Amino acid sequence: MTPKPNGIDLQRLRADTPGCAEVAHFNNAGAALMPRPVVEAQIAHLRREAEIGGYEAKAEAAARIEAVYGSIGRLLNCGTDEIALVENATVAWDLAFHAFDWQPGDKVLTAEAEYASNYLAYLHARQRYGIEIAAVPSDASGQIDVAALARMLDARVKLIAITHVPTNGGLVNPAAEVGKVAKANGIPFLLDACQSAGQIDLDVEALGCDLLSATGRKYLRGPRGTGFLYVRRSLLEQLDPPFPDLHSARWVAPDRYVWREDARRFENWEFNHAGLLGLGAAVDYALALGLPAIEDRVAELASDLRSRLAAVPGIDVMDLGENRCGLCTFTLAGHAASEVAQKLRAQAINVSVSDPNGTLLDATRRGLPDLVRASVHYYNSADEMDRLIGALETL
Amino acid sequence: MTPKPNGIDLQRLRADTPGCAEVAHFNNAGAALMPRPVVEAQIAHLRREAEIGGYEAKAEAAARIEAVYGSIGRLLNCGTDEIALVENATVAWDLAFHAFDWQPGDKVLTAEAEYASNYLAYLHARQRYGIEIAAVPSDASGQIDVAALARMLDARVKLIAITHVPTNGGLVNPAAEVGKVAKANGIPFLLDACQSAGQIDLDVEALGCDLLSATGRKYLRGPRGTGFLYVRRSLLEQLDPPFPDLHSARWVAPDRYVWREDARRFENWEFNHAGLLGLGAAVDYALALGLPAIEDRVAELASDLRSRLAAVPGIDVMDLGENRCGLCTFTLAGHAASEVAQKLRAQAINVSVSDPNGTLLDATRRGLPDLVRASVHYYNSADEMDRLIGALETL
Repeated sequence: MTPKPNGIDLQRLRADTPGCAEVAHFNNAGAALMPRPVVEAQIAHLRREAEIGGYEAKAEAAARIEAVYGSIGRLLNCGTDEIALVENATVAWDLAFHAFDWQPGDKVLTAEAEYASNYLAYLHARQRYGIEIAAVPSDASGQIDVAALARMLDARVKLIAITHVPTNGGLVNPAAEVGKVAKANGIPFLLDACQSAGQIDLDVEALGCDLLSATGRKYLRGPRGTGFLYVRRSLLEQLDPPFPDLHSARWVAPDRYVWREDARRFENWEFNHAGLLGLGAAVDYALALGLPAIEDRVAELASDLRSRLAAVPGIDVMDLGENRCGLCTFTLAGHAASEVAQKLRAQAINVSVSDPNGTLLDATRRGLPDLVRASVHYYNSADEMDRLIGALETL
Repeated sequence: MTPKPNGIDLQRLRADTPGCAEVAHFNNAGAALMPRPVVEAQIAHLRREAEIGGYEAKAEAAARIEAVYGSIGRLLNCGTDEIALVENATVAWDLAFHAFDWQPGDKVLTAEAEYASNYLAYLHARQRYGIEIAAVPSDASGQIDVAALARMLDARVKLIAITHVPTNGGLVNPAAEVGKVAKANGIPFLLDACQSAGQIDLDVEALGCDLLSATGRKYLRGPRGTGFLYVRRSLLEQLDPPFPDLHSARWVAPDRYVWREDARRFENWEFNHAGLLGLGAAVDYALALGLPAIEDRVAELASDLRSRLAAVPGIDVMDLGENRCGLCTFTLAGHAASEVAQKLRAQAINVSVSDPNGTLLDATRRGLPDLVRASVHYYNSADEMDRLIGALETL
């Protein structure tokens, strides 16, 4: 029953992770524990900024900053000119969404388990621009119904935008199937990979997405306040980033500017470079382990956790989907999710609470209350899982 | 000739600043040197995130995070409910600018020395929404001509937006005079205080601005990748922030959301909390010294520097304005600005280059080439100024 390390040197990885000595961390879908190189990359740069100045430290780190684009390009199988480094996944997503010329009657197709922040942007755009929102129903397994999606396409659909791994469970949406339909119909496809980047082997060619947003802090184990946007080269010229500045564009004449050539036209000049270097270290760390190995290990641990949770009296595991990943959600009869999280936290076990408002359409349809979310990462040990299950049994 | 510390304990302040031992830093208008408490606040939080988890560290720091709003409220003389913490000043400014319901024919009034990133937003909005841009001419002193501004007002002016301290020199625009005209005419006033926050004693009541954007990294000596937006309470309900997310709004029904009550409706959920705590430490550091004392000291040092620069053969000081602050710009005959900056950097003297594209209207009118920008802060010493002047004389 104990998960095998699956090609992963658990002892070394845990020794690399200061938090492993302090907490049993099952809040990886919130923010994972940073490994030492990620922390040290940030601290070293902050110290350097303090020593020689913020601009001067950036100039000194120019090659290392540039290398971060290369690392993300390897992570996603795309060009370095197709990446913008931004503050977080929501900003990445918002910048992409607002780069379309939304007109009254334009339609966005999304999934039922769409993430709240994205759905709020749809509602906001409906009010501001008069767009229409269509949520594709889920199939019997809980994932987006790709056949229904195909039937819902018409000339007014301007964008297909879905969340790869919804925030409220282990479900992995069939993004590559969606990508095929999008491509066949020539409709841009924006994939929110906030929860999948770092735990699933992402390849923008295989996924068929034209835009992809991701965060550093979750499964990539990077710093908070970091994220990135992938923009397919062939789409770039059709998009109009909402916030030009003197990094993303050049003011060439009093009444005229020209955009940068590459996807960095979505960036802005000022940035937390310590975080950026930490993000690069995190991506390099993941690439060194190998995303296929990480994906296998996380899925296996989560599957094991779900089986053990299901065996605890009073626990109902709520995860849906044909393919499932590291997020495990459940209820414990007679205990509010927040109470469970609080009691576990007092025992140095970190989980989080998934609120119905985070995925309101899905939660409403399924009648979901607050859920406890225990999200595993490859560095979680069998001991930690025993502690979690033991603590839940005692509750 | 040597600047007096002016109520400021120079030795202690320099001992508090690791960079003072490494460089003569005259790039404070780029990014100032962080004092030790700012660096340590960031590092301590990053280590804590690594130890107990990113969300858990945020929960633990909740009171300290909340206190940052209080500190900024004291800095600006506004309520804590009127502040949004954002990634940087440009983002703060963009979020404010795009919160207006721009319609074809709406007009924005700005100054001739407006910052490129803001002007690019005007040009972009002209293209996207059909707005008109009117740049108020400068008066004989180089500052915005407030009488001309008043004459240019009409019913189509939806916003007055100016830069307090333009990036290309020591000029301080008469923001409070602009504020009076704006208020008398009931037109919202957005002040870009990117270069003034931390070196000038800002009071939103005295300035009469309704929106104010600022950065952490410049005169406040805070971290890179931090900024804030002030939004006057009475204006909040009239604005429509461009990017709602589950922090700034609540998704209360499938087709409806409600904004947060306060200015944090301009924030997004995910943030670099280490940077935020560093920003708080920077604001507290400035408040402890006192903004009036800082303002006097910086202005005095800069005035002294301008006199000494003017006495160097071949140097032309280019600063305009009735009131001048810590930014000093100049040309050195026979030497490109970038060459001067490079040669000074090789002697551990930091200055920057001000490019005409940063303030294209002003630079075009004045026929400005690239300028060397030496920007002083209160911690600069007489020795450092001697080194800078000596190095320039040798060139």
